[in-house]
Amino acid sequence: MANISLEEARAQLMSLQRKMAAYEHAMGLIYYDGCTTAPKGTADNRAATFSILSEEIYRQSTSDETVELLEFLDANKNDLSSDEKRMVYLLLKDIREMQKIPMDEYIAYQELLVKAEDVWHNAKEASDFEMFRPYLEDLFAYQKKFAKYIDPDMDPYDHCLNEYEEGLNMAACDRFFSQLREGIVPLLKRVSEAPQIDDSIRHGYYPADAQDKLSYHLMKQIGLDLDHVGLSTTEHPFTTSLGSHHDERITTHYYEDDFAFSMYSVVHEGGHALYDTGSADELAYTVLDGGVSMSIHESQSRFYENIIGRSRAFCRLIFPELVRLFPDQMEGHDAEEFYRAVNKAEPSLIRTEADELTYSLHIMIRYELEKRIMHDELEVKDLPAEWNRMYKEYLGIDVPDDKRGVLQDSHWASGLIGYFPSYALGNAYGAQFLAKMRETVDVDACIESGDFSAVNDWNREHIWQHGGRFTPSELLERVFEADFDPSYYIDYLEKKYTELYGL
Amino acid sequence: MANISLEEARAQLMSLQRKMAAYEHAMGLIYYDGCTTAPKGTADNRAATFSILSEEIYRQSTSDETVELLEFLDANKNDLSSDEKRMVYLLLKDIREMQKIPMDEYIAYQELLVKAEDVWHNAKEASDFEMFRPYLEDLFAYQKKFAKYIDPDMDPYDHCLNEYEEGLNMAACDRFFSQLREGIVPLLKRVSEAPQIDDSIRHGYYPADAQDKLSYHLMKQIGLDLDHVGLSTTEHPFTTSLGSHHDERITTHYYEDDFAFSMYSVVHEGGHALYDTGSADELAYTVLDGGVSMSIHESQSRFYENIIGRSRAFCRLIFPELVRLFPDQMEGHDAEEFYRAVNKAEPSLIRTEADELTYSLHIMIRYELEKRIMHDELEVKDLPAEWNRMYKEYLGIDVPDDKRGVLQDSHWASGLIGYFPSYALGNAYGAQFLAKMRETVDVDACIESGDFSAVNDWNREHIWQHGGRFTPSELLERVFEADFDPSYYIDYLEKKYTELYGL
Repeated sequence: MANISLEEARAQLMSLQRKMAAYEHAMGLIYYDGCTTAPKGTADNRAATFSILSEEIYRQSTSDETVELLEFLDANKNDLSSDEKRMVYLLLKDIREMQKIPMDEYIAYQELLVKAEDVWHNAKEASDFEMFRPYLEDLFAYQKKFAKYIDPDMDPYDHCLNEYEEGLNMAACDRFFSQLREGIVPLLKRVSEAPQIDDSIRHGYYPADAQDKLSYHLMKQIGLDLDHVGLSTTEHPFTTSLGSHHDERITTHYYEDDFAFSMYSVVHEGGHALYDTGSADELAYTVLDGGVSMSIHESQSRFYENIIGRSRAFCRLIFPELVRLFPDQMEGHDAEEFYRAVNKAEPSLIRTEADELTYSLHIMIRYELEKRIMHDELEVKDLPAEWNRMYKEYLGIDVPDDKRGVLQDSHWASGLIGYFPSYALGNAYGAQFLAKMRETVDVDACIESGDFSAVNDWNREHIWQHGGRFTPSELLERVFEADFDPSYYIDYLEKKYTELYGL
Repeated sequence: MANISLEEARAQLMSLQRKMAAYEHAMGLIYYDGCTTAPKGTADNRAATFSILSEEIYRQSTSDETVELLEFLDANKNDLSSDEKRMVYLLLKDIREMQKIPMDEYIAYQELLVKAEDVWHNAKEASDFEMFRPYLEDLFAYQKKFAKYIDPDMDPYDHCLNEYEEGLNMAACDRFFSQLREGIVPLLKRVSEAPQIDDSIRHGYYPADAQDKLSYHLMKQIGLDLDHVGLSTTEHPFTTSLGSHHDERITTHYYEDDFAFSMYSVVHEGGHALYDTGSADELAYTVLDGGVSMSIHESQSRFYENIIGRSRAFCRLIFPELVRLFPDQMEGHDAEEFYRAVNKAEPSLIRTEADELTYSLHIMIRYELEKRIMHDELEVKDLPAEWNRMYKEYLGIDVPDDKRGVLQDSHWASGLIGYFPSYALGNAYGAQFLAKMRETVDVDACIESGDFSAVNDWNREHIWQHGGRFTPSELLERVFEADFDPSYYIDYLEKKYTELYGL
């Protein structure tokens, strides 16, 4: 690097990231195509291309030339902007991790991911865990190996948690989940003893094409820019950026017997998309583009889905559109009934359909199971039985089949081990964000008026624009001006459900 | 290359092609996504990624290492299989061509293509040639420059023609088109003086969702494997392979006032897809995968669209499905009426909607215009006026706007200059294939029975399986066992239209 000026090195830092963004665009699109449009028998092509492109990006982003560049910049970090410093830090951290994984294993793992995704789809459809089992065993085996390669001294599950939330570990999760449990379990008991909510308004026949119109209405309502955010349908809803935050895709799934599933999927994924597309423009095509961590991401998605989307004000705002799209089905119902129906608390089988009160219990089950597998205390083959046992223990319900049990989520098929706690943390962060937001924004008035700009502007200013500039804990500290405190979330639930169930 | 064995070099030849197939998969999918699913404002991301990936593939496929490998193999070609020999020949030819284009111009051109495609969409929608003009000027300017770089001694338009059909030139085209003109013009005159066909059955209200069902019915009917061939909608129908012939995508466009447009687009694109997916499996991920040239490709697409799809037997076969999907619209109509309606010969504005008789005139106009621009005898800015003048001269009709005039085709926006003659040649090849096929296959009986396997098997055996193994003229010679003779096509038209119009 003796021959290069700092200016040139800074320019190369930007082109390196542009190149990585291009490969990620390609690979992200291949994945997205596989979930949305691709014919059934085409997974082999995607696996082949994925494997070749991952090899290319691995080779290029860990090359001597790249490492030299980054080390040169790191040695001169006092002359870099804070954004550049953070880019160099994150890139070097990734390279150091990648260098510890043998290239052939890295490629084989990327290929496995594509196939596993495909098999999971079919296994879920057939409700046949055995079909998926060998792939899931391989996925966990790779995760264990990679954790050992990267952090030989760290507990392998701590390593997984840390991948999605810098600094998170089992000790913090155990503490957080136990505090949640103490708040939720007695509240859920009181709720279950109260008169139950009639949610029949959700159920009936809601044609997919009318639900599709509702999706676009919701996307516009929460402030998404449809020139830069697209919608497709998939088995399991998700959000992805393609190339940069200027091209964001969300997906949903229409069940014609329950419009609320897709409705809240759209608002949830829409929250992710708001966060991503809210990144400062100068972060596009860099590693700082998009959200900082999964839990902060989930704080935004679940803020829009629940705190806004399941508020009485939002239900009132949307109800006239429901009447317009589903005139017969809404006959004789009102906004209050709709509000109560989408907030009915009841132990249920499917995480993504769970109400706010029982939701965290679904997460705790996955957290416990992952932890035990990563610690070799549970074998993948015993996962369905153990899953079903825990659903009985935590939620008191019987799981009728793997489709509605252990195969319901796509996360493991995508290699996302250690991700689930983000959802529960996100919920809790969101409640504390709300308390802070309320100091300057009349949130309910915003929602009632249908003009979300004050809410979105607050989020953009405090959270979205920063992308990955700060670590999650730095960001939380800046926004909260205090420590993270799960009691905001417990208070939020307490207040909401006490009123709702007249406790 | 002193250190490498021939065996290793042969293995490297295969991995080189696998890598190229992966990049083409990624770039093809980005293009496809842009036409099908991507939100409107996302073209910049696609252009950025396209530019980076083209640079990568350019750099890698023209690297010293690659050239050395191919030259080593070329020097040892007597020890290669005939497939390998052809791969080395085609790859070296491409590299030699690419090496003549300065890298920055190649990349700028790739970027221009992505933008031009996007602008063309908007320009067509707005029927505003001026919007598209600067892009089209740049496209033609690049084509002229590239032709000079690659074949400084060849006429630039001959170079363009040769790109899509090895060995084709203006002399051959001029001859072919004049022979066609001599056959078609007097026939068209007789047709236009005969009583006209009532094609009102085509027009009415045909909802897109029922047309979509028809598309899938047609795809299955002509023998496409839906596990490997997908369908989407785009402004302009096309077919693309993603990664290999195991993942094929066709597109269509639904006009709710004319079901026949999409119907014949699906059968046309389906013909392309049959050809591609019929490649021998061992050709997957090599440069020999898929069709050999555009005109042979069009011979297959137009064989299924016209020779099969517009036959009386096919119309009889499909009519019951039309009745099932459009019961009210088909009330009082019969299969014979449908057959006559989709074969009505009449000068019209839109090439893709033209009947078999007038179709070639549309091609001749484009051929003449391209030739004149490439020879600097016509400026792009004068293209709309010249287009309109020639439509008046050749077809006797007035072009009301650019949307239905010079902006109707996507080809120029995709940089496909010299491509159009392939359609007319393809028509003529198809008629000669039919004559040959009839020596051993009862084509009409096949179509009537709805079991296309004998027809498809013949095409697979003689054409599809070979992919790019032979040059177009080698392939034609093998199949025809004679010279190419346009009079088969003229006879076919003569016979069909004489009967249809009772001449």
